[in-house]
Amino acid sequence: MSLFKTFNLFSILFIFATSCNPKTKTTPLKSWNDVTSKSNIIAYVEDVTNPQSENFIPIDKRIATFDNDGNLWSEQPMYFQLYFAIDRIKELAAEHSEWKAQQPYKAILEDDLETLKHIDMKNLIELVMATHAGSTTDEFDNIVKNWIATAKHPTKNVSYDKLVYQPMLELMEYLREYDFKTYIVSGGGVDFMRAFVTDIYGIPAEQILGTRIKTAFEYKNGTATIKRLPEIDFIDDKEGKPLNIQKIIGKKPVFASGNSDGDLQMMQWTASNKLKSFMLYVHHTDSEREWAYDRDSHIGRLDKGLDQAHKDGWTVIDMKNDWKIIYPYELKN
Amino acid sequence: MSLFKTFNLFSILFIFATSCNPKTKTTPLKSWNDVTSKSNIIAYVEDVTNPQSENFIPIDKRIATFDNDGNLWSEQPMYFQLYFAIDRIKELAAEHSEWKAQQPYKAILEDDLETLKHIDMKNLIELVMATHAGSTTDEFDNIVKNWIATAKHPTKNVSYDKLVYQPMLELMEYLREYDFKTYIVSGGGVDFMRAFVTDIYGIPAEQILGTRIKTAFEYKNGTATIKRLPEIDFIDDKEGKPLNIQKIIGKKPVFASGNSDGDLQMMQWTASNKLKSFMLYVHHTDSEREWAYDRDSHIGRLDKGLDQAHKDGWTVIDMKNDWKIIYPYELKN
Repeated sequence: MSLFKTFNLFSILFIFATSCNPKTKTTPLKSWNDVTSKSNIIAYVEDVTNPQSENFIPIDKRIATFDNDGNLWSEQPMYFQLYFAIDRIKELAAEHSEWKAQQPYKAILEDDLETLKHIDMKNLIELVMATHAGSTTDEFDNIVKNWIATAKHPTKNVSYDKLVYQPMLELMEYLREYDFKTYIVSGGGVDFMRAFVTDIYGIPAEQILGTRIKTAFEYKNGTATIKRLPEIDFIDDKEGKPLNIQKIIGKKPVFASGNSDGDLQMMQWTASNKLKSFMLYVHHTDSEREWAYDRDSHIGRLDKGLDQAHKDGWTVIDMKNDWKIIYPYELKN
Repeated sequence: MSLFKTFNLFSILFIFATSCNPKTKTTPLKSWNDVTSKSNIIAYVEDVTNPQSENFIPIDKRIATFDNDGNLWSEQPMYFQLYFAIDRIKELAAEHSEWKAQQPYKAILEDDLETLKHIDMKNLIELVMATHAGSTTDEFDNIVKNWIATAKHPTKNVSYDKLVYQPMLELMEYLREYDFKTYIVSGGGVDFMRAFVTDIYGIPAEQILGTRIKTAFEYKNGTATIKRLPEIDFIDDKEGKPLNIQKIIGKKPVFASGNSDGDLQMMQWTASNKLKSFMLYVHHTDSEREWAYDRDSHIGRLDKGLDQAHKDGWTVIDMKNDWKIIYPYELKN
């Protein structure tokens, strides 16, 4: 065999070998500066996915859970789902003259932001619930899809789905390349999220956990529907997060990421895993590119969580210093 | 290049090409006779996974849901989980002298099978719940694992995990080869199932839906636990099945399989899919190898479901005639 032919043979074999290897890794965490949070994450992932390591984690146990609001996308000056509720209430107001005198509808119709700021996630879900009770699951899905396609953030002036954190998209992609199963575990409404977040995060509906309302099944004239009822079924916040994870996933996470005290119990549950685990807090420190807030914020308060992160050596992202860019639209081509 | 060398080159390429093809299909449904149910299943799967077909279903929408008791394993003469509850109550009886006078404990301690036969899935879950309240999720998992490893079925005299249906194992494997995501959606307790069914069905914990009890999160002295509370959270039966599927999976199934009227709403929900769907009932017709029962059974009653299956042209498995063998231990090597 001539040298040329030998070379050709190896080229062909090489092409076969690489084309069928599903593990061609991209450079991880491109939008992160070379800081401790980045090196901690990479050191952890390389350790627990190395079959020779004593910390090796089998693939079926690589469960990674991510809070959504303030962790994967922005949540200021108010939860994005609250803007959805506000827009919907204004749309529906003509049919509900009683709302003019009834809180929180009154505040919404009068653009009274000071009152609206104090609506927490539970009030918010109740608001969405009350305005959409009786909708079928398909109808609600369409309403949310239409909203996300058209609504704009009041100060950033882009659609809300543009306000996801590019570095966190890279982190989830990096974990998936190493066979972690990425989940969203959010206080936000699960049906609201499922209508559009699969497209922006690459996470399928069945890996999205959130606050949910009660529903009813109907079968009439050969047609089956599920309707939304005006009653909360489960609040996926604080201790609700580990409880929902155990109910729905049935496995303890090895990786958890959040940005507020509402995520603390999920972190504590993850930290109790006998397998090596990783707890990651996003600390909002960037008042110019995003927002800066923590212990005294009316939304996404991070106080006890920050204390425990420091005490137990969990990794904390300093948004201002750790991330090269915040949003995907800042990416240079 | 000599003929010999050419041959060698092609051999090597062939090995590469086949070893990296994840879609090497096995002969489907080996333990099924060549009957209508088998040919219906194969025709459906080949149609909806064919990208040239107008009925093609994208992979992320290939959700297949299976009832468990009487559908993937036997459920006679009583639900297997009831034997678990009985065994546990007998073990714990010494600490509970009050049980001697209290139903259903009295019936259990006196082996009063006539009374026990009338315990339905809700009573059963309440029984397991009452006897294991306060256990942590890990403790309960261990109790179930120990039981399944040692307990024997009263008439078949093998451990309960041997009483799964070989033809249904083949069906789930066949669907997974065509990228369907297989789920269990059962009236049985989700924590009970998760303790061992992953091993017997190849279905991970996060794809097992069932009846669940309320739980509580505790964080004390740096230790996080989730404890079982004596209260039902959700009954995954009848209309509960489509509701739970929508809550947890967030996608409508395209394939549903069950054996009783408790599965009918899941079938109706699946039949309402705009994508081409497949509804499959297991009809227990084999009094010799398994059990024969349907419209008048105290357990796994199949009455309205059978009527709708006939009316709407759903596929019904005649266990006696359609399956070559019932259990895996009947397989010839």
